[in-house]
Amino acid sequence: MPRIIIDMDEVLADTYVKFIDLHEQRFGRRPSAEELHGIKVYDLPEAAELRKAMYDPGFFRDVALFPDAAEVVRELYDAHEVFIVTTATEFRYSFIDKYNWLEEHLPFIHHTRIVFCGDKRIVHGDYMIDDKVSNLAGFNGTGLLFTSFHNVHATGYRRVNNWLEVRDYFRALANGAETA
Amino acid sequence: MPRIIIDMDEVLADTYVKFIDLHEQRFGRRPSAEELHGIKVYDLPEAAELRKAMYDPGFFRDVALFPDAAEVVRELYDAHEVFIVTTATEFRYSFIDKYNWLEEHLPFIHHTRIVFCGDKRIVHGDYMIDDKVSNLAGFNGTGLLFTSFHNVHATGYRRVNNWLEVRDYFRALANGAETA
Repeated sequence: MPRIIIDMDEVLADTYVKFIDLHEQRFGRRPSAEELHGIKVYDLPEAAELRKAMYDPGFFRDVALFPDAAEVVRELYDAHEVFIVTTATEFRYSFIDKYNWLEEHLPFIHHTRIVFCGDKRIVHGDYMIDDKVSNLAGFNGTGLLFTSFHNVHATGYRRVNNWLEVRDYFRALANGAETA
Repeated sequence: MPRIIIDMDEVLADTYVKFIDLHEQRFGRRPSAEELHGIKVYDLPEAAELRKAMYDPGFFRDVALFPDAAEVVRELYDAHEVFIVTTATEFRYSFIDKYNWLEEHLPFIHHTRIVFCGDKRIVHGDYMIDDKVSNLAGFNGTGLLFTSFHNVHATGYRRVNNWLEVRDYFRALANGAETA
């Protein structure tokens, strides 16, 4: 059974919107899509300190789930060995928040299919869905780049723009279609 | 640089003694080495409920570090890509306890070298030091079986009985000696 490794932040969880909300709370305005083209919110000159919010208890608990993610991950879970693999070890309070978040939004994920790590080179599988080119670059299998503001300029990987495109990719694979 | 994957419970952390202490607190006596030969403490007929203690906040925080572990892991860390990989995802409060435990006892371990998972088949490396045959059996590299009461009957893996034996194994490898 093929193994699919799925990231959390910017793939399942809309951490960007959380940061945009934080930016508005802190600086009184919401950065535009144009400003965020190719960067993280905390890469904006005035917003570097926002990154520190990830160290706070609760930061990762109330992030929004991306549209269609629950339904599509459920479909993948039934026909593949799905693992949720998220970089978390920089932030000591993120573990319990991410764990409770998964339990709320994707309750069918068994605890043996969750991995909290800091360097994804250590995990192996057949497919990896991730928004970071650096994670895909170190992966032994096929990488799918989940579109996020910060990676719009990246090339070299099959891009998926939303969860319906992820669904279609794996449905096409199952039907033996070309997916290059 | 060879990658060494090191388990926590029964390898770095003496979880057995923690369970023996719990058994004494609960049942007023310490199980003998003979009773524990080949089993876990909570496999004793009267002690099945003790396993539930792992769900409690704090359980994994005050476990004792095995003798010589800090010095030997430090030596390995300097010449290998050492990762600490521990099954933790069954127990939601174990993450922060294990994280703080590592920070206290092995403060030189960078956060990118920590993995909390539930199924070690997903991690790859060159060497795995673990007390569970099931973990070694699913590993792509060379498994070293760290002796614990419960695994004394296990065969099929190079056995290491303590951290000085781990040190000697890798020193011999570095010197090009046979280690079969």
